[in-house]
Amino acid sequence: MKRSLKELADFLHADLRGDAAVELTGVASIRSASEGDLVFVEDEKNLGLALASRASAVIAGDFAAQETSAKPLLIVKQPRLAFARAARILSPARQRASGVHPSAVVDPLAHLGANVTVEALAVVAEGVKIGEGSRVGAGCAIGANVSIGRDCEIYANVTIYPGARLGDRVIVHAGAVLGSDGFGYVRDKTTGRYEKFPQIGRLEIEDDVEIGANATIDRGALDLTRIGRGVKIDNLVHVGHNSQIGEDVVIAAQTGISGSVIIEDGAILGGQVGVADQVRIGAGVLVGAQAGIPSHKILRGKGVAFWGTPARPLREYLKQLATLAKLARK
Amino acid sequence: MKRSLKELADFLHADLRGDAAVELTGVASIRSASEGDLVFVEDEKNLGLALASRASAVIAGDFAAQETSAKPLLIVKQPRLAFARAARILSPARQRASGVHPSAVVDPLAHLGANVTVEALAVVAEGVKIGEGSRVGAGCAIGANVSIGRDCEIYANVTIYPGARLGDRVIVHAGAVLGSDGFGYVRDKTTGRYEKFPQIGRLEIEDDVEIGANATIDRGALDLTRIGRGVKIDNLVHVGHNSQIGEDVVIAAQTGISGSVIIEDGAILGGQVGVADQVRIGAGVLVGAQAGIPSHKILRGKGVAFWGTPARPLREYLKQLATLAKLARK
Amino acid sequence: MKRSLKELADFLHADLRGDAAVELTGVASIRSASEGDLVFVEDEKNLGLALASRASAVIAGDFAAQETSAKPLLIVKQPRLAFARAARILSPARQRASGVHPSAVVDPLAHLGANVTVEALAVVAEGVKIGEGSRVGAGCAIGANVSIGRDCEIYANVTIYPGARLGDRVIVHAGAVLGSDGFGYVRDKTTGRYEKFPQIGRLEIEDDVEIGANATIDRGALDLTRIGRGVKIDNLVHVGHNSQIGEDVVIAAQTGISGSVIIEDGAILGGQVGVADQVRIGAGVLVGAQAGIPSHKILRGKGVAFWGTPARPLREYLKQLATLAKLARK
Repeated sequence: MKRSLKELADFLHADLRGDAAVELTGVASIRSASEGDLVFVEDEKNLGLALASRASAVIAGDFAAQETSAKPLLIVKQPRLAFARAARILSPARQRASGVHPSAVVDPLAHLGANVTVEALAVVAEGVKIGEGSRVGAGCAIGANVSIGRDCEIYANVTIYPGARLGDRVIVHAGAVLGSDGFGYVRDKTTGRYEKFPQIGRLEIEDDVEIGANATIDRGALDLTRIGRGVKIDNLVHVGHNSQIGEDVVIAAQTGISGSVIIEDGAILGGQVGVADQVRIGAGVLVGAQAGIPSHKILRGKGVAFWGTPARPLREYLKQLATLAKLARK
Repeated sequence: MKRSLKELADFLHADLRGDAAVELTGVASIRSASEGDLVFVEDEKNLGLALASRASAVIAGDFAAQETSAKPLLIVKQPRLAFARAARILSPARQRASGVHPSAVVDPLAHLGANVTVEALAVVAEGVKIGEGSRVGAGCAIGANVSIGRDCEIYANVTIYPGARLGDRVIVHAGAVLGSDGFGYVRDKTTGRYEKFPQIGRLEIEDDVEIGANATIDRGALDLTRIGRGVKIDNLVHVGHNSQIGEDVVIAAQTGISGSVIIEDGAILGGQVGVADQVRIGAGVLVGAQAGIPSHKILRGKGVAFWGTPARPLREYLKQLATLAKLARK
Repeated sequence: MKRSLKELADFLHADLRGDAAVELTGVASIRSASEGDLVFVEDEKNLGLALASRASAVIAGDFAAQETSAKPLLIVKQPRLAFARAARILSPARQRASGVHPSAVVDPLAHLGANVTVEALAVVAEGVKIGEGSRVGAGCAIGANVSIGRDCEIYANVTIYPGARLGDRVIVHAGAVLGSDGFGYVRDKTTGRYEKFPQIGRLEIEDDVEIGANATIDRGALDLTRIGRGVKIDNLVHVGHNSQIGEDVVIAAQTGISGSVIIEDGAILGGQVGVADQVRIGAGVLVGAQAGIPSHKILRGKGVAFWGTPARPLREYLKQLATLAKLARK
């Protein structure tokens, strides 16, 4: 999609330096940029590289305001953010046909909004509602009475169990499973065998959530599993039954959240973190990769980092590591 | 499904207190119960909450035997277990059509028992046997000569490689892969390249096993991978080739079991545990979340807990943690 | 497939002892071998067992050269390797029909080579190229413009995002997802909300790679994710955007590789290893199971092992463990 630098500057509320008529046709990294590409730099150190690249224009911060290069510049407060936004209009998702592919199996009692796409060999069961502009990928299995909001993108081979609800602009990557049964059993003391505890609760995923490939999110046992607005979940993450994830929480790959966990707004979890049941992670808490948080533990403090198993304040953990290293060298 | 309290008391062998004619229509948590719901309490502390709830009846233990509330009670030895059983008759799985969906691809040489369901766009290859009352979800791929017992529930998008055998009442959640090739290679010393070791063994899954969403279980290399009766496996768990899992073993989410591991009856593994090859975990052993058990290690002791990487007896590990914390504070 | 011992000896360049006319029909473990089977031993200790088995012939190393048993022997330098190669001709993959199943949905603008198989209910989008002899399993979703080389085996329910490129003889196990969006967001400092960073790069997988069930490999953000020739990736492994995996690298189950990681040729990673972003792992480095490598760290040394979180040289880590154990016992 071709845009003039002027159009982009207006869209990004950027301060334009150079030829406003330059035409941009895509985004790229500095290393791979070619003519027509827009690139970005976040610090002065890399500005030279960007200016020397083959890109047709550069997004940069205030540090570039005095730059006198012939390369056109867009000066903004948050260069990476502006670049991400520019990419949305310069490299839009490929235009794809909408409508229901003839090989898809859509129940007559499903309700599809305008411009909904159901790709080949997807199954949409009875009572499903899909909002305007949403897309269901090839091979998906959307269970009965699932509700999907507007402008969602459900990639191929996703399974959504009956009754789950997704908000608007939710992205679900291939192979993810939403609304599966939680892991709950009762051991009969007389026989020693396990019997299944009912897993009949709900799953609600709010607006603007993105869920990675082959991630799994269980529905509540009796009540609700909730993924708050704007949450970003990476590949192969597991979220257990009854957990409550607040807004704008970020969870990196392969992290596992057990049952009945509460994670408050804006917390950030690294990869392969393990969170036991009944844990509460306070708003804005940071949890380092591979940390393990034992059952019922409460972590608090906006911007406070925890690491290790069992998770300790980062500073304390690093001191323990250093102490041990010193003792072992003796 | 409507049941009188009298019917439930008989079914659960419970001691009924109050109006035997009260009608129950479902189960719920205390917090979300409404009229017609059955709830349960496991300790005296929460009894007041249950009695004050909107539920129509309460399952409780002996501690409630003297209670004189107007709310009907079912007194049992194991309240949570009785509740789970009551749920099975009050909240049965939605009645669903049986039969083979016309869009499913079922080989003429497959053999389907009575009341088998094959949902839309599932593939059932030649030589497959599916027992009475079992269900194969949308988009599943059931390989040649797979054998599935009676009353199994295979959710959507599950893949079962050729030749795997499942017992009766096995539940497999969406996206799980059963019977895939193990991870075995031989490095050619002269070229430094890896060549595939044959992965042509079998996978046997016994009765009453439940397998979580997107879990993977490899078949044996030359011989057998076996999952014993009543084993419960959570989401995203991996079980490697040739491993032997005993009966009533519980394995929480994201745990990984390497090749040729033996886990004896009744062991419990927390989430994200790593078990290296050739390990033996004795009957009734408990392994804490994120523990790592090195190659060839043997853990023994019913009810004995291990934690840490490399896994140590829990008491020892906690003492080490405390010692380190103390030293670092000096 | 029936072969005489003479034929096998020629194929394996083995030194034949005994009856060259003996016919072999399969491979087996020593424990389960029956007549017609070929078995192998790697050390003198197990030679007796092999000779006493019901197998019709034994592959062994030089240590068996003086053996005078009646059981025919094939003497080779690398018995396990020879066995793996023999298995390929004695236990070939079941002969299966080739061609496009009528229920598959193959775009008219896809280009399929000779002897390509597309199984039931697979989707092959526009612009896809599939090389001679390759197979696409049931329920796969192969996105637009994907390129798959010759003699590849893509098992059931695999998803490949548009534009990904696979070399020759690549094996992808069921449920794997290739080319999904990386996990990259930009936080808007003014709203605190995350916006998606463009994930529009490529994924290239070279020849002879094998990828495990339900593994996920993200494409580059702006540039390339690359999996080098001969890399072996186990089940449930995650590889993040922009990562570069060299040749003949081995990655065991549930390991996670973040973004922009470089792993050089011949490195070996155990299971559940976590590799943070921007890490470089040198050629031939060994990383122990569950180790965690912090952001930007560089590990070097062919054959040098690292363990722990944060990863340390193995010797150092073991010394620290021993020191702590000793202090805690005081």
